[in-house]
Amino acid sequence: MKPYLTTRSLLPENQESPIELLQEWQTEDSLFYLRNHFPYPQLSQHSFDLPIFGHIPQPKVFTYKEIQAMPSKTLTVLLECAGNKRSYFEPKVYGEQWEQGAISQGTWKGVPLAYLLSITGLLSSAKEVVFEGSDYGTRTDMEGVFYYGRSLPLDKALHPDTIIAYEFNGKPIPYKHGYPYRLIVPQWYAMASVKWLKRIMIIDHAYRGPFQSIDYQYYPDPEGDEGKQPVTTMNVNSIIQKPLPYEVLNQGVHEITGIAWSGKGRVVEVDVSVDGGKSWNRAKPVFSSAQSYTWTLWSYTWEVHDAGEYVIWSRARDTEGRIQPQQPFWNRKGYGYHAIPKVNVKVE
Amino acid sequence: MKPYLTTRSLLPENQESPIELLQEWQTEDSLFYLRNHFPYPQLSQHSFDLPIFGHIPQPKVFTYKEIQAMPSKTLTVLLECAGNKRSYFEPKVYGEQWEQGAISQGTWKGVPLAYLLSITGLLSSAKEVVFEGSDYGTRTDMEGVFYYGRSLPLDKALHPDTIIAYEFNGKPIPYKHGYPYRLIVPQWYAMASVKWLKRIMIIDHAYRGPFQSIDYQYYPDPEGDEGKQPVTTMNVNSIIQKPLPYEVLNQGVHEITGIAWSGKGRVVEVDVSVDGGKSWNRAKPVFSSAQSYTWTLWSYTWEVHDAGEYVIWSRARDTEGRIQPQQPFWNRKGYGYHAIPKVNVKVE
Repeated sequence: MKPYLTTRSLLPENQESPIELLQEWQTEDSLFYLRNHFPYPQLSQHSFDLPIFGHIPQPKVFTYKEIQAMPSKTLTVLLECAGNKRSYFEPKVYGEQWEQGAISQGTWKGVPLAYLLSITGLLSSAKEVVFEGSDYGTRTDMEGVFYYGRSLPLDKALHPDTIIAYEFNGKPIPYKHGYPYRLIVPQWYAMASVKWLKRIMIIDHAYRGPFQSIDYQYYPDPEGDEGKQPVTTMNVNSIIQKPLPYEVLNQGVHEITGIAWSGKGRVVEVDVSVDGGKSWNRAKPVFSSAQSYTWTLWSYTWEVHDAGEYVIWSRARDTEGRIQPQQPFWNRKGYGYHAIPKVNVKVE
Repeated sequence: MKPYLTTRSLLPENQESPIELLQEWQTEDSLFYLRNHFPYPQLSQHSFDLPIFGHIPQPKVFTYKEIQAMPSKTLTVLLECAGNKRSYFEPKVYGEQWEQGAISQGTWKGVPLAYLLSITGLLSSAKEVVFEGSDYGTRTDMEGVFYYGRSLPLDKALHPDTIIAYEFNGKPIPYKHGYPYRLIVPQWYAMASVKWLKRIMIIDHAYRGPFQSIDYQYYPDPEGDEGKQPVTTMNVNSIIQKPLPYEVLNQGVHEITGIAWSGKGRVVEVDVSVDGGKSWNRAKPVFSSAQSYTWTLWSYTWEVHDAGEYVIWSRARDTEGRIQPQQPFWNRKGYGYHAIPKVNVKVE
């Protein structure tokens, strides 16, 4: 018996990880969630060349061989789609109806972008770095054909752990996950980690591609743009893996298990409530890491001897003091859901 | 790109068909939904012997060879779990949270039970036929170990299309779908189609196994047993496959597609509304069959030139005049959901 990805759509291919059923530290390729905006791109020999141009002293094209010969960094990084848990918003919002499996964790090896830029140099006019993927297609909200592209502010682009990855879990990156190059931006929602990275452009102004200026923005207003804010760092968050929603349990001892994570610092505690938030019990970490970019697997032993209906809550807190809220922050495009998860069970 | 089964749980294994993404007449093995009450059973050489005993003149054990040599029947049959769409009930009910993919269609070859009973004979005291599977385990609501077992009233058991199947889609039945024998009961919800069929018992009273007398009963009362009714024939029902829930569409022409079925007679019409049920448009059957036990694939061409939010409804009617209701028939264990499906979309 094995779980599968949960298919949300095939064109483009969007598949969720069966996250409730996994306990692994590294999500294997076949269970790593897939989120695409467009059909898969055609690759060519040119896909192995990586041009960097714009506000640098001299444009340069790095070859696959050159990149692989550079000093590398290997990082285990949690990637979470900004739309993860979108289906839980009330009122409902349009877009892919992700449940909680648009999240996976893998180990990426690559060269820090800062290293490449130390070779090319940077002009003082440089403000943002634009990353363009090979994938392209149409949008419903405007005419034209668009490449998937995103920018990073200079400080995040130059962070030593922002890498141009070429390996995933010890092998070349699988085609569907961005072969041959994928930008990996730890701590940010995964729209930033551009797949099939085709070229890098240093610009002196704010990038205005639609995946930067229209999508991946929080719109708290149901209609207008008031309060619009870019989606960046992952919120502190958790899921309950076990028991499953509306499961019927025996009286006795049950392990409540789950995952917690944060895009700032690390998770320092996870609390579990079985009485609707009146009292909280500290969960124990089953596995966590000194590394900052990974999830924490947690567990809480629940002994229950009274038949009845219960609602199990989990609440993560990170080193920055951020804590999951009771109510989600509703926004029109449905990003960054991180309210306390609740699982109803009946004990017989 | 291919869809996968959607994993609801692994122990027991419950996996949903990605029904929105399939357009096939026969569901292939790897996409056929899986619904189990217990861990998979161990089979042995004895699993190929099929004993029939009880209120018949002489108990008899049929061998695999004997059964395969008998006159056979090949039927394409839709199987739907009684709990299909359970997650849509409001108020929510406990149990596996199936969405709409606990349904698949395959071709089964086997010998009519009536033929076997024509060999063994039947005593006039016979009232029901009990079918026991090889799968067993515990329950949360009572002590003990139980085999999965179900009974049929004599008229349904003797129906010429109630068969002991040994082939599925032209091959021996896959292990997970009931190898070597599966009872196939067309038109009834699939709890009746007992897998890993181990023995058949003719009794002179009403069978009282827990999967007959406790589960697979409609309980309209949230607490008590008032109005309790056994789950038998499938309701008239439909699903919308395309567009997907909360999808954003362009203005223009869109094919709305889906599936409709019924456990009584056949589906004679499917209507589609895009204005909340004020007006209805006849969908055209894309594929249906003269056979009574199969689903109908339907399609409706929607031309839309006004931006805005729409809710698409579909409503099937069968030859018996049964029609999908607006409101589901709520019942405590969540069986037989067949209210009109509704899909929200936004046109830009």
